[in-house]
Amino acid sequence: MNPFKITGVGTYLPTNEVPSEQLEESLSIKKGWAARYSGVQMRYHSTFESNAYMGARAIENALDHAGLELGDLGLLISAAATYDYPLPNQASLTKLELTDSEKYTFPCIDIDTTCLSFVTALDHAAKSLDPNTCRHVAIVSSEIASKNLNPANWETSTLFGDASAAVIISVDESGEKGSIKYDMRTYCEGAMNTIMKGGGNEFCFRDHPYDPEMHSFQMNGKHLLRLAKRRLPEFMDTFFEELPFKIQDVDHVIPHQASKTGLRMFVTLFGLEEEQLESNLEVRGNCIAASIPTMFCEGVLDGRIKEGDLCLLCGTSAGFSIGANLIRF
Amino acid sequence: MNPFKITGVGTYLPTNEVPSEQLEESLSIKKGWAARYSGVQMRYHSTFESNAYMGARAIENALDHAGLELGDLGLLISAAATYDYPLPNQASLTKLELTDSEKYTFPCIDIDTTCLSFVTALDHAAKSLDPNTCRHVAIVSSEIASKNLNPANWETSTLFGDASAAVIISVDESGEKGSIKYDMRTYCEGAMNTIMKGGGNEFCFRDHPYDPEMHSFQMNGKHLLRLAKRRLPEFMDTFFEELPFKIQDVDHVIPHQASKTGLRMFVTLFGLEEEQLESNLEVRGNCIAASIPTMFCEGVLDGRIKEGDLCLLCGTSAGFSIGANLIRF
Repeated sequence: MNPFKITGVGTYLPTNEVPSEQLEESLSIKKGWAARYSGVQMRYHSTFESNAYMGARAIENALDHAGLELGDLGLLISAAATYDYPLPNQASLTKLELTDSEKYTFPCIDIDTTCLSFVTALDHAAKSLDPNTCRHVAIVSSEIASKNLNPANWETSTLFGDASAAVIISVDESGEKGSIKYDMRTYCEGAMNTIMKGGGNEFCFRDHPYDPEMHSFQMNGKHLLRLAKRRLPEFMDTFFEELPFKIQDVDHVIPHQASKTGLRMFVTLFGLEEEQLESNLEVRGNCIAASIPTMFCEGVLDGRIKEGDLCLLCGTSAGFSIGANLIRF
Repeated sequence: MNPFKITGVGTYLPTNEVPSEQLEESLSIKKGWAARYSGVQMRYHSTFESNAYMGARAIENALDHAGLELGDLGLLISAAATYDYPLPNQASLTKLELTDSEKYTFPCIDIDTTCLSFVTALDHAAKSLDPNTCRHVAIVSSEIASKNLNPANWETSTLFGDASAAVIISVDESGEKGSIKYDMRTYCEGAMNTIMKGGGNEFCFRDHPYDPEMHSFQMNGKHLLRLAKRRLPEFMDTFFEELPFKIQDVDHVIPHQASKTGLRMFVTLFGLEEEQLESNLEVRGNCIAASIPTMFCEGVLDGRIKEGDLCLLCGTSAGFSIGANLIRF
């Protein structure tokens, strides 16, 4: 057990709503294709909003919700796969966007396990809390996927959306709340199944001009599903092995919103009740690392997720990894 | 105190050595300029080597040095600012490069605090060790700066080099070795002083074709030095305040090799003896996050850094941050 209290949650969604009909029309995709194949009716695409802008607004909302101020933070973690600039790290840029942030010297670090970044960051945040030196940590996942999509690829261009969410975790002296267990496993066999090829050192900008395929997300959906289907049951069996709960006992299973088929797999593989599975894929799309915290924050804000509830933040990510953090809220 | 033993160290340098004379000739830089202004006589530039390739070789060397095998690892952390692909995370790609890695499911995470990534990752690694579930963690910093330099900018194109280094940290039951203290502070006022503008969401590649200035590292050296000069003394005063040592008592001060002037500042600000300060800037250049671990590993391998020595891994990073990890080796 890694004790902490979640004292504040907040989200920020871009102002630009993009219904599937609009996307289908602009990209000459067959009408109804997006909802049928991706399961997404609506997503948001940033316009003026940067990763830092969206992240800072989510943090401000979470601090307000917690009744805390920026100066109360001991650490800021950016937990995401996309960024405003390749350098410096995103957390520093997000801090710069926060009002009066020049007054405070709390450190800014980035943690990236692609779609599971929030789940990993929650583990690091829990381990970083200290009653004397670090009473509150902000974790923010702010993702802009929309600028790295290939319009010719219907699967990815209808699936992804932009969003941000932040959570404030705080020292919990009671020891009753927090992370019951965290684990992650990386399976190399899937390392190249989700990739953005261009823009790093392998296909660097200097030598490789823009190409919508090279510089956009690519997914080998079929391989990923097969891999997940094989690996998820063994991962969860091991994860729950020595715990006094089964996955079926969890109040809220909050999986990464990888895809419609990926979400169905969770229900069928583990025999979950429909109401146990949290999903916002239909109205947000796959928001990379922001999917899990957006769902968690919205669940808390609308009262569906209640104090004391058992929540399993989990899923698959590019790399290929499976991870889970079981928390008592 | 966060106990751990450093059981193995390893490095990998690209095969292509680039002396300053060669660089000056190819970039039409005045002869002798590099050594005089950057303080760099020699650096390495990767040719066939990727971040993953260099990182994997450094990890293999560190595992050999530790007498451990890949299967002994409980976690792999990539601690760096540059990467092969924007997605997935670098640690997963580095794992894929390791022989037989498909047999093991240890998790792969990226931690990025730019030049201080190794210092931050060491803190996370220490907190992740567990006698039952995670006895050994590999931290690797593998950096390729050479592909993101503007040949028209003499300061950056002569300063940076490529390198990788890995360290294995292991459970230490004695409790005598490990991290005595870690801290980092982020000062927003310097957030835009070191930047690579192009290639993220703000100046995305789709809308901004390659431009050597936009798609290369940019540094405002004068601002950074002024900021470091003001902030470093207050940071170190606070860091050592409640410790039974002063910075002058440390056996090896291992600062990030930011620049020749930056390194001189350490000696003069803190009144260090010349032999206390570790430096490889002259023969490696500034290797971003790989500078600190490369120096540490080389110091251990050549016997200069001995068991029981106090080492201060510290420095400045883009963001702008100052960080330090005081360890008993």
